[in-house]
Amino acid sequence: MKERFELHPWTIIKRGFSAEDNPICESVFSLGNGHMGLRGNFEEGFSGKTLKGTYVAGVYYPDRTKVAWWKNGYPEYFAKVLNACDLIALDVALDGQPLDLAKTPPQDFVQTLDMQSGTLERKFTVSTSLGRSVSVRTLRFVSMAEKEIGALSYAVTADSGDVEVSFVSMLNGDVRNADANYDEVFWEPVSSDCTAEVAEITLKTKKTGYTVATAKADALTLNGKAVHLAPEISHDTLTAGSGYHINLKKGETLTLFKYFAVTTSRDVAETDVTKTAIERVNTAKKAGFDALLAAHKAAWQTIWAQSDIEISGDTAAQQAIRFNIFHLNQTYTGDDDRLNIGPKGFTGEKYGGGTYWDTEMFCLPFFLSTADARVAKSLLLYRYRQLSKAKENAAKLGLPGALFPMVTMNGEECHNEWEITFEEIHRNAAITLAIKNYIDYTGDVSYLEDFGIDVLVETARFWAGRVTFNARENQYMILGVTGPNEYENNVNNNWYTNRMAAFSLAFTVTAAGYLEKNAPEAYKRAKDRLGLSHHELSHFSAISADMYYPKSDDPELYIQQDGFLDKALIPAEHIPPEERPISQHWSWDRILRSCYIKQADVIQGIFNFPHEFSLPVKQKNFDFYEPLTVHESSLSSGVYSVVASEIGYVEKAYALFLRAARLDLDDYNHDTEDGLHITATSGAWLSMVYGFGGLRFTLEKLTLNPVLPAEWTDYRFNLVYRGTGFSVSVTKETVVLAHRGGEAAAVWVYGKEYFLEANQTITINR
Amino acid sequence: MKERFELHPWTIIKRGFSAEDNPICESVFSLGNGHMGLRGNFEEGFSGKTLKGTYVAGVYYPDRTKVAWWKNGYPEYFAKVLNACDLIALDVALDGQPLDLAKTPPQDFVQTLDMQSGTLERKFTVSTSLGRSVSVRTLRFVSMAEKEIGALSYAVTADSGDVEVSFVSMLNGDVRNADANYDEVFWEPVSSDCTAEVAEITLKTKKTGYTVATAKADALTLNGKAVHLAPEISHDTLTAGSGYHINLKKGETLTLFKYFAVTTSRDVAETDVTKTAIERVNTAKKAGFDALLAAHKAAWQTIWAQSDIEISGDTAAQQAIRFNIFHLNQTYTGDDDRLNIGPKGFTGEKYGGGTYWDTEMFCLPFFLSTADARVAKSLLLYRYRQLSKAKENAAKLGLPGALFPMVTMNGEECHNEWEITFEEIHRNAAITLAIKNYIDYTGDVSYLEDFGIDVLVETARFWAGRVTFNARENQYMILGVTGPNEYENNVNNNWYTNRMAAFSLAFTVTAAGYLEKNAPEAYKRAKDRLGLSHHELSHFSAISADMYYPKSDDPELYIQQDGFLDKALIPAEHIPPEERPISQHWSWDRILRSCYIKQADVIQGIFNFPHEFSLPVKQKNFDFYEPLTVHESSLSSGVYSVVASEIGYVEKAYALFLRAARLDLDDYNHDTEDGLHITATSGAWLSMVYGFGGLRFTLEKLTLNPVLPAEWTDYRFNLVYRGTGFSVSVTKETVVLAHRGGEAAAVWVYGKEYFLEANQTITINR
Repeated sequence: MKERFELHPWTIIKRGFSAEDNPICESVFSLGNGHMGLRGNFEEGFSGKTLKGTYVAGVYYPDRTKVAWWKNGYPEYFAKVLNACDLIALDVALDGQPLDLAKTPPQDFVQTLDMQSGTLERKFTVSTSLGRSVSVRTLRFVSMAEKEIGALSYAVTADSGDVEVSFVSMLNGDVRNADANYDEVFWEPVSSDCTAEVAEITLKTKKTGYTVATAKADALTLNGKAVHLAPEISHDTLTAGSGYHINLKKGETLTLFKYFAVTTSRDVAETDVTKTAIERVNTAKKAGFDALLAAHKAAWQTIWAQSDIEISGDTAAQQAIRFNIFHLNQTYTGDDDRLNIGPKGFTGEKYGGGTYWDTEMFCLPFFLSTADARVAKSLLLYRYRQLSKAKENAAKLGLPGALFPMVTMNGEECHNEWEITFEEIHRNAAITLAIKNYIDYTGDVSYLEDFGIDVLVETARFWAGRVTFNARENQYMILGVTGPNEYENNVNNNWYTNRMAAFSLAFTVTAAGYLEKNAPEAYKRAKDRLGLSHHELSHFSAISADMYYPKSDDPELYIQQDGFLDKALIPAEHIPPEERPISQHWSWDRILRSCYIKQADVIQGIFNFPHEFSLPVKQKNFDFYEPLTVHESSLSSGVYSVVASEIGYVEKAYALFLRAARLDLDDYNHDTEDGLHITATSGAWLSMVYGFGGLRFTLEKLTLNPVLPAEWTDYRFNLVYRGTGFSVSVTKETVVLAHRGGEAAAVWVYGKEYFLEANQTITINR
Repeated sequence: MKERFELHPWTIIKRGFSAEDNPICESVFSLGNGHMGLRGNFEEGFSGKTLKGTYVAGVYYPDRTKVAWWKNGYPEYFAKVLNACDLIALDVALDGQPLDLAKTPPQDFVQTLDMQSGTLERKFTVSTSLGRSVSVRTLRFVSMAEKEIGALSYAVTADSGDVEVSFVSMLNGDVRNADANYDEVFWEPVSSDCTAEVAEITLKTKKTGYTVATAKADALTLNGKAVHLAPEISHDTLTAGSGYHINLKKGETLTLFKYFAVTTSRDVAETDVTKTAIERVNTAKKAGFDALLAAHKAAWQTIWAQSDIEISGDTAAQQAIRFNIFHLNQTYTGDDDRLNIGPKGFTGEKYGGGTYWDTEMFCLPFFLSTADARVAKSLLLYRYRQLSKAKENAAKLGLPGALFPMVTMNGEECHNEWEITFEEIHRNAAITLAIKNYIDYTGDVSYLEDFGIDVLVETARFWAGRVTFNARENQYMILGVTGPNEYENNVNNNWYTNRMAAFSLAFTVTAAGYLEKNAPEAYKRAKDRLGLSHHELSHFSAISADMYYPKSDDPELYIQQDGFLDKALIPAEHIPPEERPISQHWSWDRILRSCYIKQADVIQGIFNFPHEFSLPVKQKNFDFYEPLTVHESSLSSGVYSVVASEIGYVEKAYALFLRAARLDLDDYNHDTEDGLHITATSGAWLSMVYGFGGLRFTLEKLTLNPVLPAEWTDYRFNLVYRGTGFSVSVTKETVVLAHRGGEAAAVWVYGKEYFLEANQTITINR
C-alpha cells in the first residue's frame, strides 16, 4: 500500500507533486455542499492526467442505453449526473508562459484538505521561463452556509525578481461527461456574457431541460490591498473570461479572489436562473472572501459538533473516520428531499450519480444518528414520492405491487444488466427495513399513516407476486435472484432475499395492525387508497411464515442459496495475492462458480436483524462466511466489522474497520481516481458506532455495548436520539455518557438502563 | 399466419407488390454460391424499407465490442461479415423520371425464385410520367459453376408508346453494416475505374486488411439483338457507373446484361485482386449470359440430384423442404475449409455471420448425407485449425485444454454475454460429437490420427479442469453453466452439459485406446505432441464415470438442471397466445424463473445419443419436456420432431417438421426480414431424414426406420453413405431402396439387413 497522504487527525496532506497521483488526489480533495461539488482539480491549466469534475445536485441527463444484447424490460437510458460548467478555471501565465504543472513540475508542493473548516489549500513554487521563482498559494471552499456560492483565492508572489503575471479568470461550459455512452454532449448553450464586473454562462441540459446558470466575479489585491486592474473581457457561447495582467515586482503578491455562483431551474424560475446567479455572485463579492469563509467554517463547526468521532492513539483511524464523515456531509444535507446520495457523490461520474439501496442500507443510520430526524425522513420521502414509478417498474416485469429500481434518478430504473436490474430485488426490502428503522429510532410512528403504509403494502405485494409456491416443500420459494453478494447471479432461494422478503411481508402486516388499532381513521383511508383487505394481509402472513430457506444440516448455519454447499469451499486466504482482487483477475464464470463472496450477504441479513439471532448463531455464520469473503465491494467490510465487534472479535473488527475507513485514502481497490466510494463511507461510521459502540435500538429503547480495540486508548462519538444529544466516550475502564441538549432520556448500556437528565454526565465502568 | 408466397413444389412466388413485405422478400429471395451472396434487393433505386445486402464469404471486420458493463474475459470485438460493394445496382429512368417502386407502385408484379435453377426473376409493369406503360423483366443468378461470377438481365419493353429509357449500371462501394456497433465505416477505398468496357471498385477492410475487388461489364440488346450504346461513364473513389440512354419505340425491348465478378485477397495475391476481377468479368461477358446461366443450372442439377427430397400430397411441405435445402447449398459448398456456416448465411447481418455450434450439431448431418465426405471433413478441419485459439480461450477463463468459442470468425471468441460466452460451454462437446459422427458415418477412422485426437484430448482437458469434485456426493459436478435452453442461465449441473462432458471424456479415452491398438505410430506421435499420459486418460475415465446428474425420483426422467423441479411446471399451452413468443413479451427474469424451454435441452441429449436410451425412456422425457417447450429457437422443433418420429408420435413430428421447415417462409418469429435462419434449415432436413426416414448409424452400420405422416402419400430422399448413393422412397405400403452409384453396400431397414448391389432396387413392405 502506497502512503500518498500524511497522517494527521484533521487534515489530508499531499506533500510533493506527482502527476501520476493527480486523479486520485482530485477525488480525495473534492469539495461539496449538497447543492454542488467540485473535484480537486487545479485552477490553472493542467495537461497531465486529470478528470475535470463539476457537478450540480439533481441535474442529470438520460444517456441512451448501451448494451450488447437487449433484454425485454431494459430501460431506454441511464441517468447521469452531469459534468457541468467549470467554475474554478483560471489560466495563469508567468513571464508569458502558461503555467502547467505537468510541464513545469513545482517545488515544495503541498496540498491540504482541512476537514475541520472544509477548505482546500495548495502551495508550491515554480520557476518562470526567465528563471524567476514564484510562490503560489490557493485556497478554495464551496460554501456550507450559502449553498449556491463558492470562492477561491489564487495568490502569486514574485520571490526572486520581477515577474509578468497574467490571469484569465474563466467560466468554461465546454464540458462533457467522461462516462458518456456515445460521447455525446449533454448541454446546449442558453446565454453567456462577460462584463468588467461579472461573467455568466447559462446552459441547459438536453432532454431533461434543466437550466443551470453559473456566474463569477473577481477581485484582486496587491500585497493584501485591493487593486483595480481593467480586465480584458471575452466570451463566446460556452466560455467567458476576464484577463488581468501585471508586472509583479520582486516581493509583491498578487491575489485573485474568484467568487462563483450556481443556480438552477430546479430551485429558481427558469426565466430568473441567470439573473439570480449574477445577483448571488455580486452579493458574495460584496460580502468578501473572509466573511464568506467565516460563515462556511461556522457551518462546518455545527456539523462537526453533531457528527465528529474522536479516536485517541491511532491517527490513521482518526483521520480516516473524519474523512468519511466529512465526505458524507459534503454530499447530502437533507435540505432538498428531491435529492439522494450517489455512490460517488460529487467526486466522480462512475455509476451515474443515481440512488442505490446503499442509501437505505448504509447511509440512513448515519443521518439518523447525527442529524435531525427530518433528514432521515427526507430520504424516506424520496422513495415514497417515487412509488408510482416503482409500481410501473414491477408491472414491466409482469408483477404486482412496487419494485424500487436498482439505480434511479427520478424513480425510473436505469440499470441494464439483467442479473442486477431484474434479479437483485432484495433492494426492495431495504426500503421497507429503512421505514422500520426510522420509526424505531425516531419514534415517529405517524410516518406510517400517510406515507409508510403505502410503501409497505406495495412492496409486500411485489413479494407476494414474486414468490413461487412449491408444492413439494409446501413452502414459498424465490427463484432467480441475485443477492447482495453479486458474485452469485440468478440463484434460487438466496437466504438473505428470502429473509428480507419474509420480513417485509410480516412487517407490513404488523404495521397495518398497528394502524388499525392506534390510528383507525388513517387505517381506513389507507385501506381505501390501497384497496387493502384482511384477506390480502393474511396471505402476506402466510407467505412470510411459510418461506423456504436453503436446506442445511445445521439449522443454525444459514446457507447463502440453494446449491451453495456444492461449491469447493476454500478459504479466500488461499487465493494467490497476485490474483486479488479476483474481479480484476478472474473471468466472470470463474468468480461465479467459486464460493467467494463479494460483500456481506448472509452476514448482511444478520446485521439487519440484530435482535433475531443469538450470539452463538452470529458467530457460527461469521466463522463460516467471513473466510470466504473477499470484500471486493466497498460496502462489505463495515458490516462484517459490526458483527465482528458484537461477537467479540474486536481485533478482526478493527482490521475490517480500517479497511472500510481508509478504502479511498489508501486506494485499496485501485479505483479512487474514478471518485470516492461515498455511500460506502457510511460503512466506516457503522463499524464505529454500531460496531465498537454497539448501538442497537428498538421502538422501546436505545442500547449501547461499547468495546475498545487494543490499538486505541479511547474514542468518543456523538448521537442524536429523539431530539436528545449524547456523547459517548469509551476508555479502557469506562463508558462516559454525556447529555448534550434536548429532553432527558434513557440509554441502556451493557444491559442496564441509565436515565440522563439535561446536561448530566454518567460514568459507567466497563 | 399471413401467406406471402404461393405454394409450388419448385418455386417461391411473390405475387403483387407490397412495400411492407419487401425486407422479408429480400431475405427469402437471397442468392448465393458459397463464395458470395446477395439479398433479393431490387436492381433499381428503392426508397422504401430495404436492407441492402451483398456479402463475401470470409471477409469480416472486428467491430469494437459494445457492452454496458465489462466483465473480465470479454473479447475486444465482435467479428462481422461485411456488407460489401453493391453489385446489382442499376438506376433506371423512364421518360426522365427515376424508377422507384416505392413511389410508383407497379402492376402485375411477380417475383419468382426458381430453386431448381437457382434464379430470381421479377416482372412488373409501370406507367411512366408521360403515361406510357412499360414492362420490366429481370433475371439474376450468382453462379454455382464459377464462384466469382454473377449476372443479371434487365429488360424494359415499351408497351403503349415511345419511352425515353436510361440505365446507369453501377458498382456502389458506399456501404456500411446496418448492425455496426458504433456506426463506423468498415471499408477504405483502394481503387476505382470505369471505362466503356468495364468498371471496378476495389475496397479494403479496415483492421483485417482484406482487399475485395468488384468488377462489372455490360452488354445491351434491342429486341434480342446486340446493340451498342456509347456509355456515359463516371467514377469516384467509391462508385462507378455507365449510363445508357435510348428512345425506345413502342413494342421494342431494351435489355441490359450486367456481368459482375468479385475477387478477394483471400484467394488471389493482393496485387492481382483488381486485375483478376476485371479478367473474370471480361471472360464472363465473352461467354455470354445464356452460356453462364446454362452452366449455373447444370451445377444446380448436380446438387439437387444429391440432395433433393420429394414429398407427394403436401405442396407446403414439398416447397419448404426444398427451400431449406436450397439455402443450405447456397451458403456452404465445402470448397474452402477456411469457411463455415453463418446463422444467416448471405441473407442478412444479424449474429455477425460467425460460426456457432449450429454447424456441428445441426448442419453437419446434412452435409454428411448429401455430399462427399470431404465436405464434412472441411467442417471438422475448420475447428482443428482453430485449436490453438481455443486453448487461448480456455486459458483466458483460467482453465486447461481448449474451449471452442460460442461465436467466431478466426477462432477467437466474439460473443460478449457472460452467461453465453463463459457458460454455454456444452458447445465444446458438440465438436467432439461431430468427430465421432463423422467417423461413424464415413468410416474414416484415420481422421483421429493427426487431427481428431488433438481436438478430443484438448477439449477433454477443458472438461477435466472445469468440473468441481463434490465430496458430499463423491461425484463431479459442473457448476455455473447455460445449456442449449438459453432460457436458463448460470445453472448447476445442466443434465445435457454433464452428459456431453461425460461423453467427451469417455470418447477421448476410447479414441486414444483405438489409436494405441490400431495405429501405434500415430498414437505415439500424438502422445508426444499432446503430452498425454495413461494417468490423464484414467482421470478422464474417472470423471466420466463419476459424473453427477441432477437427482430425480424417477431414474428414467432426466432433470434439466439442479432445482428445475422447484419451478411451477405449467404446460406452455397455458401461456396466453398474445404473450407468445415469450421472448418478445416477458421480461428476462420472468422467462428465467419460468419452466419454459427455448429449445431442446434434455431432448437434445437424447437426440445426440440415439442408441443409449430405450424408447420408453425417450417417450417419458419427451412427454415431460415437450409440453414445457416454447420452441423459440429456430433450432428446436427439428430435433423434437426427430425424437417424436422415433417414439411413434408421427403427427406431432409432422407439426414440428412443418414449423421448422416453413419458419422463414411463414415468418413464424417475425424476424425473417433480418435474414433467414440458415443453420436452422438443417433442422427441417433432420426431421425428414433422421425423423421420418429414421436414419441412424454406428461405425458398423446404417439403419433406417421410415414412418409416413398421414398428410403424405409418399416421400423420397437421397443419401450418400461411404461413397454409395441411395434413394429411399417411402409409401404407405413400402420402402423402396435404390442403389444410385458407388460400391455395393448394406443398409438396415426396420431391423433387417439389406445388401444392395450396384443399381439394385429393393422393395420392403412396411
